[in-house]
Amino acid sequence: MTTVDLVIFSVIDNALQVLLAQRPQEANEPFPGLWALPGGFVDVARDVDLLACARRKLKQKTGVISPYLEQLGSWGGRDRDPRGWSSTHVYFALVPGAEIKPTKGGNAADAAWLPVDEQRHGLAFDHNHILGAAVARLRSKVEYTSLPTYLLPEPFTLPQLQRTYEVILGRSVDKSGFRTRTLAADFLDEVGVLDGEFNRPAVAYRMRDRARVVTFPRTFSPRGSI
Amino acid sequence: MTTVDLVIFSVIDNALQVLLAQRPQEANEPFPGLWALPGGFVDVARDVDLLACARRKLKQKTGVISPYLEQLGSWGGRDRDPRGWSSTHVYFALVPGAEIKPTKGGNAADAAWLPVDEQRHGLAFDHNHILGAAVARLRSKVEYTSLPTYLLPEPFTLPQLQRTYEVILGRSVDKSGFRTRTLAADFLDEVGVLDGEFNRPAVAYRMRDRARVVTFPRTFSPRGSI
Repeated sequence: MTTVDLVIFSVIDNALQVLLAQRPQEANEPFPGLWALPGGFVDVARDVDLLACARRKLKQKTGVISPYLEQLGSWGGRDRDPRGWSSTHVYFALVPGAEIKPTKGGNAADAAWLPVDEQRHGLAFDHNHILGAAVARLRSKVEYTSLPTYLLPEPFTLPQLQRTYEVILGRSVDKSGFRTRTLAADFLDEVGVLDGEFNRPAVAYRMRDRARVVTFPRTFSPRGSI
Repeated sequence: MTTVDLVIFSVIDNALQVLLAQRPQEANEPFPGLWALPGGFVDVARDVDLLACARRKLKQKTGVISPYLEQLGSWGGRDRDPRGWSSTHVYFALVPGAEIKPTKGGNAADAAWLPVDEQRHGLAFDHNHILGAAVARLRSKVEYTSLPTYLLPEPFTLPQLQRTYEVILGRSVDKSGFRTRTLAADFLDEVGVLDGEFNRPAVAYRMRDRARVVTFPRTFSPRGSI
């Protein structure tokens, strides 16, 4: 039996959050009551391949059809599940979380967005380790790509997008450099005006092509980054 | 049943080569007689985890214990094996091939090093696709890392290492820039002198720490690369 697990990230309340499912409170289930990454078995009748399975499960948990979804890696071994040797294929997804209410599927007791930093310890199975790898992958990619755009409901303002970068990176980024780099990369379309900081109007944007992740030139800023 | 497959690369006779196993010539086996990536089932009694399984299979096929080995990704779907839905965890390895005679394991008809460029079509299962992904990963990493060092028997000369880069990248690299960048990265130890080009003596090197892959600074050369 092949399983797929999902690390679904969003930024909510100025924090990087992950969608987790609570293990059933039953003594014959491993890790009863603990939080775990959502996932489950491939449905060989419905899932053409691993990615299709990941997409289906993402839709089940979030209602979202096709946000950013990529293979993170696979984890397998004899110590991750007390029931015996197991392996899983893990995907990670970025969704605009403020709009998304998690759906608990299967036998889960509950489902919720929980801040990543508070969830690094105490997850079921080897999910602390997998979540750590997903956070590392996200942070390394965020330095040089448009990935955080997938975490915002559209339309959004540049300060909102900058704040999303800052939340993921855990540090402030230079406003002027961020603005210049982002607009130079030419992946956003203006779609009107929103209320910005201090109720001043700010230009609203959306992604021109949600299927395309933009990689910024590494030599753009003197520091090689924002 | 969990399977692990291996993409084992080397550079032999000035060509990037991959270790392949020939499918058994039996009508009840899928893809009889075709070449395929080596691999097989996890042994849950012996393999602590997926990486341990990959290491064990690499040792079986090549006699090598711990060269460069990393997870490439996983492939799974209903169309890759005529026997039904299947998935596999794939690792890729770099070994000094000139010293390594492939061992055919299990029910394989034969095992051999074959040039990558001639093997992109006609492999069993979805292995053309997996091999293509492995070549792309290798090429993208080679631009900025010391990875090709794992493909050479030690000791080696700088021109031999440069030639290995050129074979993988499929283009020539600037000799002076290569030499400067490589020595500045300070990951090689001098270990004497070898006969170099035109029988002139050349400094021989080996890796200082085989467990450490060096990433070169991206801004080192004006072109950002070698």
